[in-house]
Amino acid sequence: MTGPLLLTMGDPAGIGGDVALAAWSQRAAEPLPVFAMIDDADRLRALAARLGLDVPVVEVADPAEAAAVFPDALPVLRLATPLGGPVVPGSPDPANAPAIIDAIAQAVALVRDGKALGVVTNPINKQVLHAAGFAHPGHTEYLAALAGGGTVPVMMLACTEVRVVPVTIHLSLREAIAALTTEAIVTCGRITAEGLRRHWGIAKPRLAVAGLNPHAGEGGDMGREEIDIIGPAIDRLKAEGIDAIGPAPADTLFHPEARAGYDAALCMVHDHALIPIKTIDFHGGVNVTLGLPFVRTSPDHGTAYAIAGTGRANPSSLRAALRMAADMTRNLNDQKPDAS
Amino acid sequence: MTGPLLLTMGDPAGIGGDVALAAWSQRAAEPLPVFAMIDDADRLRALAARLGLDVPVVEVADPAEAAAVFPDALPVLRLATPLGGPVVPGSPDPANAPAIIDAIAQAVALVRDGKALGVVTNPINKQVLHAAGFAHPGHTEYLAALAGGGTVPVMMLACTEVRVVPVTIHLSLREAIAALTTEAIVTCGRITAEGLRRHWGIAKPRLAVAGLNPHAGEGGDMGREEIDIIGPAIDRLKAEGIDAIGPAPADTLFHPEARAGYDAALCMVHDHALIPIKTIDFHGGVNVTLGLPFVRTSPDHGTAYAIAGTGRANPSSLRAALRMAADMTRNLNDQKPDAS
Repeated sequence: MTGPLLLTMGDPAGIGGDVALAAWSQRAAEPLPVFAMIDDADRLRALAARLGLDVPVVEVADPAEAAAVFPDALPVLRLATPLGGPVVPGSPDPANAPAIIDAIAQAVALVRDGKALGVVTNPINKQVLHAAGFAHPGHTEYLAALAGGGTVPVMMLACTEVRVVPVTIHLSLREAIAALTTEAIVTCGRITAEGLRRHWGIAKPRLAVAGLNPHAGEGGDMGREEIDIIGPAIDRLKAEGIDAIGPAPADTLFHPEARAGYDAALCMVHDHALIPIKTIDFHGGVNVTLGLPFVRTSPDHGTAYAIAGTGRANPSSLRAALRMAADMTRNLNDQKPDAS
Repeated sequence: MTGPLLLTMGDPAGIGGDVALAAWSQRAAEPLPVFAMIDDADRLRALAARLGLDVPVVEVADPAEAAAVFPDALPVLRLATPLGGPVVPGSPDPANAPAIIDAIAQAVALVRDGKALGVVTNPINKQVLHAAGFAHPGHTEYLAALAGGGTVPVMMLACTEVRVVPVTIHLSLREAIAALTTEAIVTCGRITAEGLRRHWGIAKPRLAVAGLNPHAGEGGDMGREEIDIIGPAIDRLKAEGIDAIGPAPADTLFHPEARAGYDAALCMVHDHALIPIKTIDFHGGVNVTLGLPFVRTSPDHGTAYAIAGTGRANPSSLRAALRMAADMTRNLNDQKPDAS
């Protein structure tokens, strides 16, 4: 594998362009791996002017040109589907939905053709895309669909201090409890362990599995999911040779001494995973999709329309997402020395 | 109000004695407010010898004597109900249940008689006490019963960086969701605001109220509790003149910038409150009961039988509990300068 990382446009009314321009302009102080955007060069030039950032934007025809351009300018690959309307920071426009959606497909196709290392996605707004007929619940599901049949995507949030994987994600808490199955936990654990091996070079990944209920149910006194669902999943993971411990009370897993004991924590519901990582590192968290046949990361924030175009958007998470994608592909290459 | 703080024995087979002796013996490096234990002097002497700690233990007949004794020895008030059996660290004995239970009542009576400032409780094991006929779900409910009719205790966990209040506590997650009511949130918020005024001297406490569902339900897309239950509770708190904001996504409330915006966070379920505080300060968290007619704190750990008598118990949380109780009573005194 070779080439740059590809950073998608995301919703051009959101802060994707803001953080990309800011990260590139700060690259001397905060080094970045080479990336090319899949975006509209003119809208990026207008945004840079609005933000008062001195960022030359240069269109490239092929990802292979990005490395030569990157030290002096932000390389941009032209959108396969052009913007459908004018871009106004903070004001999403469904006319731009086809361009937003196709930029993602374009990035995936280039990576799968071996022309780029991995995909980093800028935030989109599902409502804007749904209105334009986008049928996927979100980014991750669309990427899984692009990857093809049988792909089970697993969402990991990662920062320097901790990696967490929510087994259930965007469901109400009530529905998440009802949806929790031994099978889902085993699948999540298996894909997480495989991802840690492939992309982080951890030969024998250690998984900590959190309980669902307070005190992990206290032996069945406060809920039976630990006994009926989670414990059996841990047993199955162990039977597959995966180092998994738990169910541990969710509140005892995230202080520094506890974190030293595992490589990733599997949590049963969204906030049991997201509260600790956002408490520890609110701006530096990265969203990683495991289980895809290519590397994909994204900053762990949304479109943040309210601050788009103001210069207040924080590029830390995008920077971390770019660096993590680069590390993940480097580890892959290290394992397959004759693949590139 | 005057006098020492009173520290209850807790389960003598647990680490209560260990952390009390350790904290007293380290008082030069880590200063402590004056406290007297309600305990058995002989078992404490035996434990000190076992732990190799040079802690003179002196029986006092009245809390008023504690201040004179404390610089040179650990003052101990005799148990009203003596131990019923020998004390073996790590091996709880139901024969000691009456002594454990009555030490709590004794501490509360002395504080309510104006002879001591507040109660700090060492950990108990509900199972041991239940076996001896103790009908309360735990410490907090027993203290509320001692306080008399109409007392609604509210559990707060506090450390230097954050204060959290779980609205539902020791229920399975499924039951906690079902038990959540607007009334419970309003009561919790009211008692929390009153506690912050009385015990922390915060004239206009700011409460942040977390949502229950991921992204606080995202406008009803992922659960309706924010719309049907939590939002109305915030409106009622505001109507009572309490500064309450939310419902906020639970995962965005606990990084340093977010914490600067409130004095306490109300969380809907146990782990949404306990995960962040234990992530931020695992050893220094204090359990505070608000809504009682007296000050009560306790270390935020259990009996830890496995390490009782080994010298491995960490006294940080007990130390923090003693200091917080002292601060809470000092603030009360400051508000009523002619009360002591």
